[in-house]
Amino acid sequence: MFGMTNKKVSTESYKGVRDFYPEDQAVQNYIFGVMRKVAESWGYLEYGASVLEPLELYKSKSSEEIVNDQIYSFTDRGDREVALRPEMTPTVARMVAARIQELPKPVRWYSIPNLFRYEKPQRGRLREHWQLNVDIFGISSPYADAEIIMVAADIMKKFGAKNEDFVIKINSRELLQAMLKKASIPESDSLLVYRLIDKKEKMPEDEFRRSMASLVGEEPAEKILEMLYFDGALTTVFREEASASRLEEVINILKSGGVSNVVFEPTLTRGFDYYTGVVFEVFDTNKENPRSLFGGGRYDNLAENFVNEKIPAFGFGMGDVTIHDFLETHELLPDLASSTDLYIAVAPEADLAEVYKVADAFREKGVNVAVDIGNKKLADQLKSLEKNKVPFVVTIGPTEIETKQFTLRNTKTREEKTGSIEEVSRLLMDVEPTRFR
Amino acid sequence: MFGMTNKKVSTESYKGVRDFYPEDQAVQNYIFGVMRKVAESWGYLEYGASVLEPLELYKSKSSEEIVNDQIYSFTDRGDREVALRPEMTPTVARMVAARIQELPKPVRWYSIPNLFRYEKPQRGRLREHWQLNVDIFGISSPYADAEIIMVAADIMKKFGAKNEDFVIKINSRELLQAMLKKASIPESDSLLVYRLIDKKEKMPEDEFRRSMASLVGEEPAEKILEMLYFDGALTTVFREEASASRLEEVINILKSGGVSNVVFEPTLTRGFDYYTGVVFEVFDTNKENPRSLFGGGRYDNLAENFVNEKIPAFGFGMGDVTIHDFLETHELLPDLASSTDLYIAVAPEADLAEVYKVADAFREKGVNVAVDIGNKKLADQLKSLEKNKVPFVVTIGPTEIETKQFTLRNTKTREEKTGSIEEVSRLLMDVEPTRFR
Repeated sequence: MFGMTNKKVSTESYKGVRDFYPEDQAVQNYIFGVMRKVAESWGYLEYGASVLEPLELYKSKSSEEIVNDQIYSFTDRGDREVALRPEMTPTVARMVAARIQELPKPVRWYSIPNLFRYEKPQRGRLREHWQLNVDIFGISSPYADAEIIMVAADIMKKFGAKNEDFVIKINSRELLQAMLKKASIPESDSLLVYRLIDKKEKMPEDEFRRSMASLVGEEPAEKILEMLYFDGALTTVFREEASASRLEEVINILKSGGVSNVVFEPTLTRGFDYYTGVVFEVFDTNKENPRSLFGGGRYDNLAENFVNEKIPAFGFGMGDVTIHDFLETHELLPDLASSTDLYIAVAPEADLAEVYKVADAFREKGVNVAVDIGNKKLADQLKSLEKNKVPFVVTIGPTEIETKQFTLRNTKTREEKTGSIEEVSRLLMDVEPTRFR
Repeated sequence: MFGMTNKKVSTESYKGVRDFYPEDQAVQNYIFGVMRKVAESWGYLEYGASVLEPLELYKSKSSEEIVNDQIYSFTDRGDREVALRPEMTPTVARMVAARIQELPKPVRWYSIPNLFRYEKPQRGRLREHWQLNVDIFGISSPYADAEIIMVAADIMKKFGAKNEDFVIKINSRELLQAMLKKASIPESDSLLVYRLIDKKEKMPEDEFRRSMASLVGEEPAEKILEMLYFDGALTTVFREEASASRLEEVINILKSGGVSNVVFEPTLTRGFDYYTGVVFEVFDTNKENPRSLFGGGRYDNLAENFVNEKIPAFGFGMGDVTIHDFLETHELLPDLASSTDLYIAVAPEADLAEVYKVADAFREKGVNVAVDIGNKKLADQLKSLEKNKVPFVVTIGPTEIETKQFTLRNTKTREEKTGSIEEVSRLLMDVEPTRFR
């Protein structure tokens, strides 16, 4: 249009989020596919919700850091305060609370939502990530805690990880509470103490000691540090406290269920304020990068924000970015083929309408097929296949259309076989490569 | 906490968006599953992107109405103008433009993104919906136009719709342009005229006539109306114009490919400004509700917003809400079973650790299995099954654990069969109910 400048719009995505080109999307689909398959094999049902939630949902429910510094929120045209969900737990608690009377218990649900946090983008920390959430509601049995952790461990195994590749650290908020009591730290300070302990790995030890002392006083600080870091918990607190037997039961169910890589970790707190019982966190055992992968815990009081009822709940969240890094580090990402099984290269003299009919016939046999309608030289069509990662190709010209005999070529092994559509389709479906859906 | 009021947070979702309880999510998964399966069978690859995009992406690229009145946008903490994508086409054009040199052509891509528009919520019009987008890039052949429309028709058929249940109306922006020229309407007014024609069905005829006259003048208005509404296009314009032969070719390819329910509709314009060639729109033929279902078209100039290159492009968007309504009206939604195959009811005396081992063994055979760990009476466990829609149940007590023989009950037919885990699993997998993934 007249007067329009020729200034180009950037092809970059918004800062801190990702574009998923087909090869990237295939990896996401593989990761989500494993998560989905395992969750469903344990009887968990998929649910979903919008990424937009009333901001009110997060106020004083998530951690303060999230709401104050990291949440994406805005006021809509109708003057409502809206947030892009930073985590899924408040949403699932809201949905379960809304229908708690009619839902058959236990409620076993999973979802793979995208979540937003305003963070400085860096490795493993993006502004948008996807996170598998697996939760069980309506049941306070230690079997609920253990089952959720077993699902988490099963997913790791189905990704190809061995028990020695990761360790499940486990603790209990009730036990932590008992330790705080023994150190004469008032209950009203407990959340602040948990948050500080949660940050321990991110600061030098003396800074941590000083922060603890200034938070609770010199003497209580010494006591709590002794319990947390010098096996004090194991030798005294764990034996004396009732809450410890619950934790022990969960650990025993896990071990009897084949989850041997679980260890009691008295300093494990988890960041969120809403946890009330057992908490766990999975770590990479790789010595060069012993990072935290994901975790979860029991949160029996969250539903009370919505209804006059406690709803027992236990769940975890497993993020795609961290898992992707883990799989890459441990060389567990499979080489994924294209979702297209067969590429039809078109000889220049071929009648495209007839080629389309052949493609249709392949499709009816369940073959995913793309036709090259680019009118390129045959050599160029075949060259583009290498980029496409399509496992098979067939070239169609007037002869093939007349004889109805097609020569299938494996693009990797270059092996060729000739036959009818039916015969060739059977060959194709037999050698189906790694795909997930 | 002291001083905290007991005010409850609402369990409602944000206005105009939906919660997907497992039974709703199953329907979404079914709909997405059909879309995905058909798109991939035609060789289209899945891509993805974030729902957040720079606002700049939509300025003067989408329709004015969207950017001014309907877009969700806000300023982030780093002072960037961000939008929640109202449509996917600018995103996919951005992504293709960014890698146009290395992408093998034709680029065949699909995605099922969620999109946001600030609308007054009403039936079929929500603030968030999901939309299948199927696009082909790098090719201007009429086969590209036709293939995309064939994919759309194939999806309708795979949903169970017959050719007589829907009609594909087709037109061409180039042909429209020629008609406008014949009516002496200047090219600079064309977008305004298209937008007005696009709204024709939403206003009384005399209002439409008056609006057209005041937009382009009495005489040109009469001329264009005659061409558009009194077969003027068919009898004169269509025969004379070069752009008509292209449209005819597309129609012929479609008919030769079995898409017989396609008709030329000279008043079809489509809302978006970026279309440059053939446009199409699919309508329900149901006389009580002959609504528009979805549509698309050619947009060869959009990529020029990003790079100094025209990239031929043709695509369509198919929304979940409209399709869901269509399937419901035509009674095409299947009765979906739970993703859980087997429910294990637990007799009170059973050792839960042993029951879990049995569940594991079923899982290894590929069975999705949920264990009732609720410690309820057996009768109550079985009652909850009806709500769950799980197709099979097995009750496990000490006898079953000892004898390793399990009685499988079909929860619908009440038929029972007894056997080992292996035998029972085989039965289960054979009668797999309608499920999509």
